[in-house]
Parts: sequence; C-alpha cells; structure tokens
Amino acid sequence: MAALENVKSDIRAIVGPNGVLTGDDAEPLLHELRGWWPGKASLVVAPASAEEAASIVRLCAREKIAITPQGGNTGLVGGQMPQNGEVLITTRRMRNIRDASATGMTLTVDAGVTLAEAQEAAAKIDRLFPLSIGSEGSCQIGGVISTNAGGVNVLRYGNMRDLVLGLEVVLPSGEIWNGLKSLRKDNTGYDLKHLFIGGEGTLGLVTGASLKLFPRPRERVTAFVALASPDDALSMLSRAQIASGGNVTSFELMSRFSIGLVFKHIPGARDPLEKIYPWYALIEFSSGREGALRDEVEAILGAALEAGVIEDAAIAQSEAQAAAFWHLRHIISVAMRPEGAQAKFDVSVPVASVPAFLKDAGDAVERIHPGARVIAFGHLGDGNIHYDLLQAEGGDRAAFETAEDEIEQAVYDAIDRHKGSISAEHGVGLARRDDIARRKQPAEIAMMRAIKRALDPQGIMNPGKMI
Amino acid sequence: MAALENVKSDIRAIVGPNGVLTGDDAEPLLHELRGWWPGKASLVVAPASAEEAASIVRLCAREKIAITPQGGNTGLVGGQMPQNGEVLITTRRMRNIRDASATGMTLTVDAGVTLAEAQEAAAKIDRLFPLSIGSEGSCQIGGVISTNAGGVNVLRYGNMRDLVLGLEVVLPSGEIWNGLKSLRKDNTGYDLKHLFIGGEGTLGLVTGASLKLFPRPRERVTAFVALASPDDALSMLSRAQIASGGNVTSFELMSRFSIGLVFKHIPGARDPLEKIYPWYALIEFSSGREGALRDEVEAILGAALEAGVIEDAAIAQSEAQAAAFWHLRHIISVAMRPEGAQAKFDVSVPVASVPAFLKDAGDAVERIHPGARVIAFGHLGDGNIHYDLLQAEGGDRAAFETAEDEIEQAVYDAIDRHKGSISAEHGVGLARRDDIARRKQPAEIAMMRAIKRALDPQGIMNPGKMI
Repeated sequence: MAALENVKSDIRAIVGPNGVLTGDDAEPLLHELRGWWPGKASLVVAPASAEEAASIVRLCAREKIAITPQGGNTGLVGGQMPQNGEVLITTRRMRNIRDASATGMTLTVDAGVTLAEAQEAAAKIDRLFPLSIGSEGSCQIGGVISTNAGGVNVLRYGNMRDLVLGLEVVLPSGEIWNGLKSLRKDNTGYDLKHLFIGGEGTLGLVTGASLKLFPRPRERVTAFVALASPDDALSMLSRAQIASGGNVTSFELMSRFSIGLVFKHIPGARDPLEKIYPWYALIEFSSGREGALRDEVEAILGAALEAGVIEDAAIAQSEAQAAAFWHLRHIISVAMRPEGAQAKFDVSVPVASVPAFLKDAGDAVERIHPGARVIAFGHLGDGNIHYDLLQAEGGDRAAFETAEDEIEQAVYDAIDRHKGSISAEHGVGLARRDDIARRKQPAEIAMMRAIKRALDPQGIMNPGKMI
Repeated sequence: MAALENVKSDIRAIVGPNGVLTGDDAEPLLHELRGWWPGKASLVVAPASAEEAASIVRLCAREKIAITPQGGNTGLVGGQMPQNGEVLITTRRMRNIRDASATGMTLTVDAGVTLAEAQEAAAKIDRLFPLSIGSEGSCQIGGVISTNAGGVNVLRYGNMRDLVLGLEVVLPSGEIWNGLKSLRKDNTGYDLKHLFIGGEGTLGLVTGASLKLFPRPRERVTAFVALASPDDALSMLSRAQIASGGNVTSFELMSRFSIGLVFKHIPGARDPLEKIYPWYALIEFSSGREGALRDEVEAILGAALEAGVIEDAAIAQSEAQAAAFWHLRHIISVAMRPEGAQAKFDVSVPVASVPAFLKDAGDAVERIHPGARVIAFGHLGDGNIHYDLLQAEGGDRAAFETAEDEIEQAVYDAIDRHKGSISAEHGVGLARRDDIARRKQPAEIAMMRAIKRALDPQGIMNPGKMI
C-alpha cells in the first residue's frame, strides 16, 4: 500500500480531476450483477485515452501494483472485479469512434464505446456490426473483446474473436502495442491479438479495436417451429442451412419445459402454436436482398413438415410478432426464478453431439437429485446450450443446494465425455478458474501459465483471474 | 552430431523401415520450389501418427536436437527447409480422414492430408471446405495451418485461421496437446491454437486438425469486368457485396499491363472484351440456392454500367468460359517471366487504401528505377495485392538487379505508410525474417520472442525461421 500511496498523486495528475472515481461514482463499479464477488479496489481510475492508460500502467508496473481492467461491468464470472485492492482501470471515458469505412467495411473504436454504439456507428454508414448480446446497451467493446462474447448471431457471423481485425493494447509494462491494423490478411508472425481476445485482461488492457463490418441484411424472417426431439432439431438446422444457402442467422432450441415456465410465469406471453410439442426452435433467416426470403422460408418449412422433420411452424407476420417470438426465448431465465433453487451451466459440445449430451447429462443429474428439472435452451447452431437445472418440483430446496457441487461436477463430467466446453460464452474469471485448472489437459494449463509469465512477468494484470 | 547418432537408431525403431527417408526419397524434400534455400538435414523422418511424431520429438528434446517440420513442401518463404542439419519431420505419412460430420459441419483430418483431399472429403458429404490455393493438390493441411494460407475465397470464407476449430500439436517437449475440439464456442482460457496457426512450425508440429465446413454453393456466376481505375474497382466491390447480400466469393483486380502480358505470351489466351481498358476485375458470385443468381448478377452489372462504375462486362456462359477467365488471372505470374528481371511482393493494405498504395509505391519505384513496369493484380476484396515489378522495357537487367534491395525497401516503406503487411499470405520463413525484425514495433517482436522462449525454451522447433 505504501507503493500505492507513492503513485496515487501521480495518477491523479495523469487523468485530471474527473479521472479518479470515488464514493457514489466508484461504488457501482465494485459490484457485479449477481453480487457474488464484491469488489475491493484501492483506487478507481478512468483514463480518457490509451496514452493516459499507458502512463498509469507504467507507474503501476514500476511499483509492482496490480491492476484490474473493467469495461461495462456486465461480465458473469467476476473477471472484472478487483479482489485484493487492485487499481481498477475502467475504460468508460475512452469513447471515440475513431474511424468508420463503408468501402473497407471496418470500424475502429475506443475500448469504452458500448456494443450498441458500435452497432449504431456501423448502421450510420449502411453496414452491420453483427454481434448482439443481452447487455449490448452497456457492455463495452474492450470488455466484449476480453471476454470473446458470443450471442445470437454467432452461427452466421462468428464470435467477437472472428470480428476483430486489430487491437491496441496497453501491455503490462505500460507500453502501447499498436496492433490496430485494419487488414484482412497479415502473415508476419504470431497472431498476438488472439491472446488478448478472450484473455480476460490478464495479459494487457485493450484500449482500441478495429472491427469487421458486413452488408446489412435487407430482409429478416423469424419462424417458431415445433419439434419432436433434439435430433429432429439438428436435422432441421442442417436443412435450413443448406436450403437457405447459409442464410440462417440464429437457431435457438428450447424445450417445452423451458418455454412452459414462460407461459406460466410471464404475463402476456402466449404460445404461437395451438398444440403442445416437446421441443421448439426459434429460427431466424436473413438475407442481403429484398423480396424473396419469406417465400423461401415458407418452402423450407413446408418441405420439413412434409418430411416429418418438424411438427408445426409459425412464421412471424410482423416485426412485433418476431419480437414476441424472441421475447419467449430471452425471458426463460426470468421465468425459472419462481421455481426454486437452480444451477446454471454455459455448455458447448460439438453441434452433432447436443442430443447425446442432453440425454447423458440428464441421466447423471437424475441419479444425484431425482426429479431435478432440466431447462435446456440456447444456440443449437453453435452447440452452445444454456443447461440450467431446477430443484425437484415441490422438493427440498436445501437438498438441491447441498447436492449442487456434486451436480456441477456430474454435468462437467458429461461435458468432458462429449468433448465440450464448460464455459462456452461467459468465460472463466473467478467462477471457473479452479475447474479449468482441474479439467484441462496439464500441457494446456502449462502453456497458458508460461504465456502469462512471458507477457506479464510481474503478474500485475488482473491477478487471480482465469489462471 | 554425437547427440544425433544416439537417437538415430531409436528413431528408426519408432517409425519402422518406411519411416526414414534416404537418397532419392529424401532428396525432393530438401529442395523448395524456387531453389533459393537448399535444405540440409541430418535425418529425414516420416512418422505415421501423432504418437510416432511425439516419440521422435521427445528424443530430440532430450538431446536438444533441432527439428524442422514439413508438409507438402510448397511454401514460398523457406520455412520448411532445414538449414543446419535439423531433423526434418515430414507429415506425408499421416494421411487419415478421422471424421466428417455433415450435421456438425466439421472435418477432422491428419496433418498430411492434402488440401484437395480435404476438399473432396467435404464434397463427399455434400459440404464445402472453401480454402483454395494454387498448390492444393500437393500442399498438406498441417502446412496450410502453419502458414495460415489464404487464396481466392478468403473474401467470403476467411483465411485458414478462420476455418480451424481445433488442433492436435506435438509440443517442443514431445507432449501431444489435444486441442482437437470441434467446438464453435469455447471461452476457457487463452485460445492457444492461434499461436500455432501461422506459427510456421516454430512452436510445435501440427499433427491433426478439426476444420469448419459450409453449405456447398449450388450456383456460381463469373464475370469479367472492365474498369477505369482502382478507385472504381473499390466502388464496384462495395456495390457487388451489398447488392448480392455478401455473395461475392472472389474479387480479383488486374491491371491492363498484367493481363496484356498474358495475351502477349500465353498461347490461346484471349480477351473476353472487345476494347482495351486500364483495369479489370474477375468477380465470382456464388449462392447456396439455385436459379436466381445469374439474373441478379446481370442486374448488378447493368446498374454498375449505367452508373459509370464499370466500363464493360462479360459474364461466363459456361463452366469452360469461367475457367478461361480464371486462367487469365492465374497465369499472370508465368506471363511475366519472359520480360526480364523481376521483383515480387505479397502486399496487403486496408481494402480502402489499395488505390493510394498503388500510386504511392509506383511513384517510389519510378524514382529508383525509371521505367520499371508494375504488375498489380490480386485479391482486392482482402486488400491483398500481388505487387510485382519488371525491369524497364529494353532496359538494363543488371541495373534493376542492383537496385533490387533499394526497390524492396521503398515498397516496404510504402506498405508501412499505408499501415499494411509486407507478407499478406506467404509468411516470413527465411525470406522476410530480417525485414519483420526491422519493421515491426519492438514491443511486438519482444512479445513474439517471449512466447517462443516460453513455449520452446530449448529453441529446437524450426530454429532460424520467422523470429
């Protein structure tokens, strides 16, 4: 702490009076959404530029003071929470749109620009920045990069990792790495940006990024489809992708039980179909051309119905109806809350293994907590299933909570058996650090540690997170 | 060498009698296409599996013996050539297609499978593996990964880097890293595969890969378009991408001078258009649906003609005619040979900066070697231009050759001014190692070296290449 006192006034001088947050201004940055990991920072500082951030990091490096980078503070695994009095550096004041090129199809922004603002900057030049997640109004590009966020459009456009052309990063030494090239091809050495993307701030502080843009879709068609099984959902996914020529933007699987909770608990939610079916998919098609898509989707669904791959289908007749379909999908997490104790998993397995995984994990959970209810829904097209569990109906909350660790390890074991990932989207942070250390191949953990030591020899960047 | 003698018989025991290549079998592996970097290996060994490869690397690690990995030996920068008596490990006997999933849209192969064989394996299950390069009949997947190859379909489908889901790698310790997951999403730590992709074998030996597949295009339309300037070509690229909804697979720019050499030197080559124009583009559209594409392309070209963005256009009326258009593009490198001394560059700049770069580099070269002739052609959609130079017509070959180093640095300077890459596709290897050391930001070179030391502390994997 003596070291910190040495640099506090220097940091104040770098960022000016608005750059150090205290009291009510700092407070919200020390609490994350779930309240699981209270933050403890010795200083909360908001540099307004990469240069200011670099000056701060240089001072910290000199005094061996640890740093926790933070974006919009929407992360779900605690990666953005200082735990031991680190200096919290928030990117919230780094808010410039640096460049937007319609011809080059690129957008270059400061790390503190929100995802929604980046989407808007692209739309202004008639282009699309396709990443879309629930928190897009407040999450910041730097954080989106550091956590490699995913969302509902990954099937068509990829994760954040796939959308980054170049990065500007303040390294643990305080040097600025200017890797902000807007190049589609560059084979001149190790592609270092991929270490920082999904690196959860453990190797550096992302201050700027150059992003890929796409043609804007001119037409969107949203369908709500009933299915007999996850196997049929997989068949439908293939059909839809092939028949539409890759125009499937989203393919969200939902079990009847998941969506039944929505009809039960969410006022105004109504079933788009008349009968009840065991599984559903929300399928969104989009096309860069106008006019033909709806007929195409009707033909695709008609053929699937005839082939017995789907049981029934409704196509949204308006933007409002499409939004209502999407609402059913997005509100599932809320609808499960009144049902008692729950455990949540962010699973991915190879797309073709989703049905087998669901069966396998379900059996394992049933053995531990008989009657446990499975809420399975999510991005089937990416093999990414939000696999949530509820205590047995009318059962004992305490019994479920006692078994939770055992359930967790049983689900993780099932994920391992199907060569999946225990964190498809949300990352590692504090939440899953011990799990990956235990479950990843030792050679992989050793490589991660060697890289961390090589690039952050003092261990000052976001210590205690991820590895 | 004493150390090597210790392990030679052990290596023979690992790979069996067919696994050690000598004499005429080994000879072709010690010569690369251009004859610039003769290979010198103390042993040429062809393991048949990842396990055999790992056993060899373990022995070499124990004795601190250096290794050069080699795939199909088609690289253009010498990365696959042992220079100081390394053990050359070729992946040519690792030839299994491990898995092909139509539903999961994945293909898992041994490193020694050729690119053409991977394309065929995908086609067999009615899917597309989109990477396509001139050497696809002989280059191997392991080499394609280690060099992050590009080619003509990058605009639509990305570089090899974008097509890899997971890797199996023999690490410099001889351990096998099983990173062969077929996952679309995995946020559990640093994404290590990206260090090996484009790593030129300096961090490990790739032995297997899981690759992304796509729906097969059902229709292709190829157009040969005349343009007044590179600026118009950029406008046409944007128009084509937007109007087709992202269905542009290739957009190859060619100057009249480039293609004029084809008409001059290549028997049977004929101009698809009646008049002569300063620039051309070969544009390929593809669609996953049948029927509508040709009409669409006609409408796009008609509108562009009307708007004055293009000067004239021909649409291929048959597969044979499309192939003839492509032949014009592919044969440029051959057509320039009879014209005297040449220098070749593999440039990328931001897509929107291509016209400015061409002007800037051309002016710089003219100052050094007045009358130098510029052959500019390549993948405009990726900002990747093959920028080749010919000596002044009827000029002094020796004068050009003497000036070559100066010309090279002048072109590199122009690339730097436009924030480009001096090696868009071909890599670093031996050819550009000193150039990247000199031109990259020191912080970036330092990170690359730190990673190399961290993952290969003995420095035995492909020493002397890239860094």
